[in-house]
Amino acid sequence: MPERRISFAPGPAMLATEVVTAFQTAVATYGATGLGILELGHRSTEFADLFDDTIARVRDLVSVPESHEVLILHGGARMQFAMLPVNLLRHDQCADYLDSGHFAHDAAAEARTVGPVHEITPASTGYRRLPDLTTHACDPSPAYLHYTSNNTEIGTQYPTHPPARPGTWLACDASSDLLTRPVDVSAHGVIYATAHKNLGTAGLALVVIDRALLAPVRQLPSYLSYEAHAQAGSRLNTPPIASILTLNLVLRWIGIEGGVAEMSRRSQAKAALLYDTIDSSNFYTGLVDPDHRSLVNVTFAAPTDELERRFLSEAGGQGMDGLWGYRKVGHLRASLFNSVSIEHCERLTRFMTDFARHHRHSRPEQGSITPATAGAT
Amino acid sequence: MPERRISFAPGPAMLATEVVTAFQTAVATYGATGLGILELGHRSTEFADLFDDTIARVRDLVSVPESHEVLILHGGARMQFAMLPVNLLRHDQCADYLDSGHFAHDAAAEARTVGPVHEITPASTGYRRLPDLTTHACDPSPAYLHYTSNNTEIGTQYPTHPPARPGTWLACDASSDLLTRPVDVSAHGVIYATAHKNLGTAGLALVVIDRALLAPVRQLPSYLSYEAHAQAGSRLNTPPIASILTLNLVLRWIGIEGGVAEMSRRSQAKAALLYDTIDSSNFYTGLVDPDHRSLVNVTFAAPTDELERRFLSEAGGQGMDGLWGYRKVGHLRASLFNSVSIEHCERLTRFMTDFARHHRHSRPEQGSITPATAGAT
Repeated sequence: MPERRISFAPGPAMLATEVVTAFQTAVATYGATGLGILELGHRSTEFADLFDDTIARVRDLVSVPESHEVLILHGGARMQFAMLPVNLLRHDQCADYLDSGHFAHDAAAEARTVGPVHEITPASTGYRRLPDLTTHACDPSPAYLHYTSNNTEIGTQYPTHPPARPGTWLACDASSDLLTRPVDVSAHGVIYATAHKNLGTAGLALVVIDRALLAPVRQLPSYLSYEAHAQAGSRLNTPPIASILTLNLVLRWIGIEGGVAEMSRRSQAKAALLYDTIDSSNFYTGLVDPDHRSLVNVTFAAPTDELERRFLSEAGGQGMDGLWGYRKVGHLRASLFNSVSIEHCERLTRFMTDFARHHRHSRPEQGSITPATAGAT
Repeated sequence: MPERRISFAPGPAMLATEVVTAFQTAVATYGATGLGILELGHRSTEFADLFDDTIARVRDLVSVPESHEVLILHGGARMQFAMLPVNLLRHDQCADYLDSGHFAHDAAAEARTVGPVHEITPASTGYRRLPDLTTHACDPSPAYLHYTSNNTEIGTQYPTHPPARPGTWLACDASSDLLTRPVDVSAHGVIYATAHKNLGTAGLALVVIDRALLAPVRQLPSYLSYEAHAQAGSRLNTPPIASILTLNLVLRWIGIEGGVAEMSRRSQAKAALLYDTIDSSNFYTGLVDPDHRSLVNVTFAAPTDELERRFLSEAGGQGMDGLWGYRKVGHLRASLFNSVSIEHCERLTRFMTDFARHHRHSRPEQGSITPATAGAT
């Protein structure tokens, strides 16, 4: 295999080399079928085995209780921005959405095309803090409370699921942190995640849903109905076979590496490496409130735009890519999805320390560091 | 590459070996990115180039006029069963659906969850003939007339698009025959096709739509709106990257082989080989009316169930798979998508002729051939 670069991109993420190699073998021939994975029949016993094994691994690694169904659907999280409200939100009921970032806000905007939405906004601008639930009134009996567990753009993350009133369903977009830490599935009505961050490659969404929520609140074409997909075992139509194999290989890799507990331990270690480097640098500035920092997307600024451009260029020269910030935020960001190892992070922090030492003289006088959207911390 | 088998499956279809080999290389490293196609950033210039090249090749090979937009969306044709009516069918208007098979009927059933649908049914049972438009009243001013250009299950195909009244939009599910023959795009409001028959691997739908139809007739979440996808250049969210590369490689392969005109010539030659073998065999029976036979799905019966089981087993022994009939039809079926070559068909017809000769003695007396759902021909 040609030399591979290290990607700290926010998704599509890099994959473990073992996953890439196994997938490559399957492209030529999958098992004993004499055809590759791109050509595999979705009614074949080989695919049925692959699919069942994938669901079983999700149930095991995510600790999905019997009360919940696991669906693998076409599309990404944005398809779920539509499916969630059309299935769960009646015209005469309101849904609460925690506005913790651009994608959380987009999810609320999509739901608003279906029914009334109450958006709970953060006190600060620029999403540097998460919305404070204690000071914001929610709807008294919402259809559900939706939150985005991790803000990929500016790097905030809920340390655990927000409390919901008894009787209120909790719906979570866990696109960037599912499988990076344990999650209490039983506390949620719906958890969904797109694939291309921690679950493999683009082309599918994983949906974990309480069976009590399967029946849609309105008549829907079957493709939009959780119930129809559940009844068809997620095979209402030909499934995205290549993305499912990738997910399966990623789940196998996580199992071999030690499961979600080990991924969580590594996530904490990787994030600590980055934040310690930032905080002790007297050069980099973290973009968000330290209490709300994400373990999977670490955002920071260098003293000047020019230094940030040099940072990206020099990191690229050392084989490390994807460190640019989200287009609406700017600055720098290291995304530490499961396939980014502790060793990759050590390489990055060594580079960051060296870069700070070499360029400290280019730093403006202390007190003048005011990157456009950097946090006040 | 390990020895590959020949698949006459109705989809997922086999791919040309050149496509499989090129894809396999891209899994390790895509271009100079240092990452594989499964990991490629959808905002990278490499992906932008791949995407733009794919759209350009579709426009060229399918002869898409400037009036029409080309979209590449997640999901398969069944997602379009939902998107078509939610975008085009008002509550107070009717849509005409030609019921030429199970999938055409399913498309109508999905649309009925959105608005009134008038289904135009065939005179014969079992879909052995296509609906006769001259003897069936259509809605006087439907939102659109929907048809399925090829019935994959039992093997019928419209020789050309059905006539629509002036001012009536024509919508076509071309999942099994797009790129196998020329199509008059300008006569259509919408043409859509899933990928895993002639366009590569599962995980996307190609949609060619008149720009005049982009604006939806009702408020929709953006993911369900053709207009929103068009405005986002089909990248409203992370696209199904692996399926798009496969589509691109298939389009390149078709271009090298001689384009759609050559695919059409081969389709006719391949179908002729099969039908000539069936008709001259005094052993096999075609399942549909000869006037309505499909060039891409050839269905036939052997004299007994037992002989059909032996046929499948012996064909498998000679490296040929996927010849079983659709589960609701039974019997035998050879799907002749673009990646099935004339040589593959010659190998199959040689086998068919040999099989008939060897098993002619097992054939019941003439006159007693009555396979359950075989045509009356």
